[in-house]
Amino acid sequence: MFIMSSPSGAGKTTISRMLLERDAHICMSVSCTTRPPRPGEVDGKDYHFVSQAEFDRMVADEEFLEWATVFGNSYGTPKAQVKAGLKEGQDYLFDIDWQGTQQLYQKLERDVVRVFLLPPSIDELRRRLTGRGTDSEDVIAARMERARSEISHWDGYDYVVVNDDIDACFDKVREILAAERMRRARQTGLIGFVRELMTP
Amino acid sequence: MFIMSSPSGAGKTTISRMLLERDAHICMSVSCTTRPPRPGEVDGKDYHFVSQAEFDRMVADEEFLEWATVFGNSYGTPKAQVKAGLKEGQDYLFDIDWQGTQQLYQKLERDVVRVFLLPPSIDELRRRLTGRGTDSEDVIAARMERARSEISHWDGYDYVVVNDDIDACFDKVREILAAERMRRARQTGLIGFVRELMTP
Repeated sequence: MFIMSSPSGAGKTTISRMLLERDAHICMSVSCTTRPPRPGEVDGKDYHFVSQAEFDRMVADEEFLEWATVFGNSYGTPKAQVKAGLKEGQDYLFDIDWQGTQQLYQKLERDVVRVFLLPPSIDELRRRLTGRGTDSEDVIAARMERARSEISHWDGYDYVVVNDDIDACFDKVREILAAERMRRARQTGLIGFVRELMTP
Repeated sequence: MFIMSSPSGAGKTTISRMLLERDAHICMSVSCTTRPPRPGEVDGKDYHFVSQAEFDRMVADEEFLEWATVFGNSYGTPKAQVKAGLKEGQDYLFDIDWQGTQQLYQKLERDVVRVFLLPPSIDELRRRLTGRGTDSEDVIAARMERARSEISHWDGYDYVVVNDDIDACFDKVREILAAERMRRARQTGLIGFVRELMTP
């Protein structure tokens, strides 16, 4: 479970997309949501669309790895799907905030790798959050405040990458993923090979 | 402190040399030894040559990160030198066996990254340990036994890399080193930057 968090405006969405496109062994899990499908969204592919009652039951039965309610809609990552995938060597990318990260870490600490992306500078962060210049100062100030709040939780992550160049940042994220896949504890496929090497 | 261990014949010496040549931020520490200098060896560069009495005093005063006696000669890594280097951002490569690894890990757990190299197959290991074909079966059998014994401690390492191709293996070792340098806990230089990002 490869978690990437960042304040909005630090390039997380771009890096996530690049990773999903170029690495065949990582995918995103299909979340459950109580929000109605948008045109073109397919149940079971984009989301599992469930009723609020069903969602509440899943929360009560601890069927989610993490869940959150945003603007009145609930979103959750089903535990069963991810656990089955991990067993088969499938890696999962999570594009979540620090609270979701904490929930995941508490549940499956050993399977979690946490990466935090930082913007290259405060000026660049402000530029990215200013958008097309059509938003009011208040809206921008609120975005900056949310970004600062997210950054304040950077110490809950294993790795930190400063995104001052999108390709360099992507290479770094890929190096982290490659290294974590070489961890002995994850290379369960080697156990038989090592046993063979040790047989006189 | 970047530790590489492997049974002899798994390519550790080659990988170490490549790393020292191509990565300016990693070096080997200068060890102390009680063995007499060989022609051309320079005191303070190849080794610190010390008397047995001085070595024993350093052991008693816990001045070594790890030490061992091999064929009657003692070798040790001075703690002060490495600790000072680490503070300045210098990385150190250690080409040591599982016992030295344990000693280092017990002393400076947080600063240690442990990598174990495996040979590609039992046949290839035997081929590499057979040498030029001039050694007796007994000598080869003893080497194989030592290799097996070293391999049996592979579970004391953070990362495992199978060396089936020297360049691919080197790239993997470099990825591990690159990733470990991105660990938040090692990026103390970012603390000021993050504080700045969080200032309204």
